[in-house]
Amino acid sequence: MRVSSLCTALSCLVVAACRPRPEAQVGEAPPAQTAPANVSHGEAPVGTGQSPAFDPRPPQRSGSRLHRVRLEMRHKRITVAPDVRYDGWTFDGTVPGPILRATVGDTMDFTLVNRAPIPHSMDFHAAEVAPSRVYVNVMPGDSIHYRWVPRVPGVFMYHCGTAPVAMHIANGMYGAIIVDPARPRPPARELVIVQSEFYTRRGASSDSALSLDWEKLLGLAPEYVVFNGRAAQYADSPIRVWVGEPLRIYVVNAGPNRVSAFHVVGAIFERVYVDATDRPLEGVQTFNVAVGGGLIFETRLAEPGTYPFVSHAFADATKGAVGMFEAVRRGPGQ
Amino acid sequence: MRVSSLCTALSCLVVAACRPRPEAQVGEAPPAQTAPANVSHGEAPVGTGQSPAFDPRPPQRSGSRLHRVRLEMRHKRITVAPDVRYDGWTFDGTVPGPILRATVGDTMDFTLVNRAPIPHSMDFHAAEVAPSRVYVNVMPGDSIHYRWVPRVPGVFMYHCGTAPVAMHIANGMYGAIIVDPARPRPPARELVIVQSEFYTRRGASSDSALSLDWEKLLGLAPEYVVFNGRAAQYADSPIRVWVGEPLRIYVVNAGPNRVSAFHVVGAIFERVYVDATDRPLEGVQTFNVAVGGGLIFETRLAEPGTYPFVSHAFADATKGAVGMFEAVRRGPGQ
Amino acid sequence: MRVSSLCTALSCLVVAACRPRPEAQVGEAPPAQTAPANVSHGEAPVGTGQSPAFDPRPPQRSGSRLHRVRLEMRHKRITVAPDVRYDGWTFDGTVPGPILRATVGDTMDFTLVNRAPIPHSMDFHAAEVAPSRVYVNVMPGDSIHYRWVPRVPGVFMYHCGTAPVAMHIANGMYGAIIVDPARPRPPARELVIVQSEFYTRRGASSDSALSLDWEKLLGLAPEYVVFNGRAAQYADSPIRVWVGEPLRIYVVNAGPNRVSAFHVVGAIFERVYVDATDRPLEGVQTFNVAVGGGLIFETRLAEPGTYPFVSHAFADATKGAVGMFEAVRRGPGQ
Repeated sequence: MRVSSLCTALSCLVVAACRPRPEAQVGEAPPAQTAPANVSHGEAPVGTGQSPAFDPRPPQRSGSRLHRVRLEMRHKRITVAPDVRYDGWTFDGTVPGPILRATVGDTMDFTLVNRAPIPHSMDFHAAEVAPSRVYVNVMPGDSIHYRWVPRVPGVFMYHCGTAPVAMHIANGMYGAIIVDPARPRPPARELVIVQSEFYTRRGASSDSALSLDWEKLLGLAPEYVVFNGRAAQYADSPIRVWVGEPLRIYVVNAGPNRVSAFHVVGAIFERVYVDATDRPLEGVQTFNVAVGGGLIFETRLAEPGTYPFVSHAFADATKGAVGMFEAVRRGPGQ
Repeated sequence: MRVSSLCTALSCLVVAACRPRPEAQVGEAPPAQTAPANVSHGEAPVGTGQSPAFDPRPPQRSGSRLHRVRLEMRHKRITVAPDVRYDGWTFDGTVPGPILRATVGDTMDFTLVNRAPIPHSMDFHAAEVAPSRVYVNVMPGDSIHYRWVPRVPGVFMYHCGTAPVAMHIANGMYGAIIVDPARPRPPARELVIVQSEFYTRRGASSDSALSLDWEKLLGLAPEYVVFNGRAAQYADSPIRVWVGEPLRIYVVNAGPNRVSAFHVVGAIFERVYVDATDRPLEGVQTFNVAVGGGLIFETRLAEPGTYPFVSHAFADATKGAVGMFEAVRRGPGQ
Repeated sequence: MRVSSLCTALSCLVVAACRPRPEAQVGEAPPAQTAPANVSHGEAPVGTGQSPAFDPRPPQRSGSRLHRVRLEMRHKRITVAPDVRYDGWTFDGTVPGPILRATVGDTMDFTLVNRAPIPHSMDFHAAEVAPSRVYVNVMPGDSIHYRWVPRVPGVFMYHCGTAPVAMHIANGMYGAIIVDPARPRPPARELVIVQSEFYTRRGASSDSALSLDWEKLLGLAPEYVVFNGRAAQYADSPIRVWVGEPLRIYVVNAGPNRVSAFHVVGAIFERVYVDATDRPLEGVQTFNVAVGGGLIFETRLAEPGTYPFVSHAFADATKGAVGMFEAVRRGPGQ
């Protein structure tokens, strides 16, 4: 393969970054494409076309001011990588748990039900409440119900707060909640990425499922670092977007240990919201998301093609913290 | 225990975050309370009522423009966790060393005395001086004296700078200095938290004290990650504050290795000062404090109860980077 | 040695930070000096006077709007520490690769030639292009040529993007490109520091050269953490600057794994540019550079002497992430 031969024609010299960018028009997802070409960054097979395990699209902003949320905590065998099963602990049976969404000032009417055999609890980073009142342990078969009002916009981690917290997080009990500002953010294609780690050993059961290796967790050496619960799922099934449309990526780092160095290959973040104000950073190649933190990244993809996104702490990308965007050009009438 | 039964009454639905917040009134500490209820985040026993090993309250801002500071460097057996003794190296016999405080433009008249059997030195991150002039090694029995003027407001690390620096830091030779801006910050309840790590092995002596394991330090695997020198001391002895009063937490990360992901459970930081300007971040759930860095976090606790604070890199919280606030409501006349 | 005796004279009390700072006059480098005094922070021998392996000075900003850049990828034995040879992979035979420079809106006419025996590629963090079009694998003996236009100012990482990317980065395939804003930054003495790690084992060959230990890389335990490819080279050969002149340090963290906690001992950063805007942080002691990120640090050294710079994650400084500035006073006519 002589790649250089691709470049003999003048068309190769077109400079994508200088072209006027297409106007943002967010709506339907681009149609499914055939498998994209592999790209050199691929740390995993690309484009088998399987559906990803976890839909990264958040729910739409709702007009309702009251949100009834009921989550069930269940222990469940999950898949953390192709053919790798893990005895996880979950909110509502998925890792991460459901993506929640509300607007500043809304009321969250929250019910937490424990369907697991051990105590669990819930800690909302978006809430300003006494942990000793509402982040309490819920016993197996019991539940808790309370209301709270998000006051600060952003994307926030939620997680089980039962000790040892590192164990409950490492087993899968976390998720993201988007709190929209009162004045909606501009239209964009929105995605939620929750980064986390798995520390594994052969389980006690006779089958092949893995379970938590507590010593590896304390030793800070995960086998898997994943986006939305499964290694490289969005490399296997790229996320399709339009060329030039604004992307808004809500990134939560659930940890429990690794700083995320979030980066989109082939793109620069136009804006990174590191706090709740309207003063984002502008023009950033890579930015750390603290464990227990959540940041909002905005970018656009300049031309058709495949764009990996990673934690640029590259041992972690090797372990699964990699996905792909597939940017396609919008046709007439789309 | 049926936690859900707590929620049958309407009072459970009161949403703390929406209540008008009490006006800030900083003064006397809240009275000592009986042991608070355990909370699920507790990575350590809560509320035995023992006094913490290290008082987190900084000295008051002083009207004096000249600060005579004399620190003695001593090797001393310290306690890094309940019943865990460690052969440490100290400034003035405590880990961290004394909390220092000055205002921009003040003069620090500084004397450093070496009462230890090996060379040591002092590096003030708040100073702008030639290390080769004043951060020099002081021999056992000797001292050094010089003056310097802090020019930049914030909270800064100080530490021994003798090679290998990682060893001197890991053994306990660090502390915090607050440099106040010329115009005082608004009144608040102020606390200083210095995060650090201990890497331990059985000592050479016949007793049970631990000493530094250099290979573990280089391998980045601490046994203890602590706030103000002792694992979970403020879980054992929560820091009592008033509901709604402004809290200002000066956080220094002495390391030597682990990024801090500072977070208060049940609260959101109203402001995080990441530089010396009056432009803090506003509305932040968790923020990284670089090793060798210091940031100022401001928040308020919305209702009575217990609020853990942690490094959300949760293996580190498991290893001791956890404390508690106990928020109590101010009574009449308080 | 009685250091305290240095302080009996009044001259010792002169407070450097309060003196009016010399006006910035950037031009000739200060003359070579005799070896500076050792400083206690020295994690390595200081001042043997050998030339450093890598010149940290970037090329000057060019008036040309078209930049023809041709890089050859070669496998080459490099030196990562005194007497430590490593079988590296390089851009143009050096680690890091050449420092590139352009201005926003310029055209990069880029040719990448593969002189190595395995596929490699190039990923410019400063470019906004489809990785699947131009960050493709170039086969041994082949080349690729294309043009691109940097649109966002800052300092950006470039690196080989061939899977496994962590391996290609860990073997040395990275560098820095400065993208100047359209309006030039103020005059300053400019330096480029690229931090990276080496994970080593005895090579297969009969000689003593090291090669990559993949398991150590995945285990996050480097033996060497370096600035510009070689442990402590700027401690051995300090970078000479004028007292008081503005320094602008372009720092890229190539990783592949360790967050950099960049810090200059004895100085405070006047400005840290964390994004592409004209709104830097001001007054910062230490700041994290994400893996895959690049930040611009500006400071001045207040008085003559030796000033170490480090990653304050001090196991990394111990492993080589340490250098020195030697500040000398400008004489008449200089």
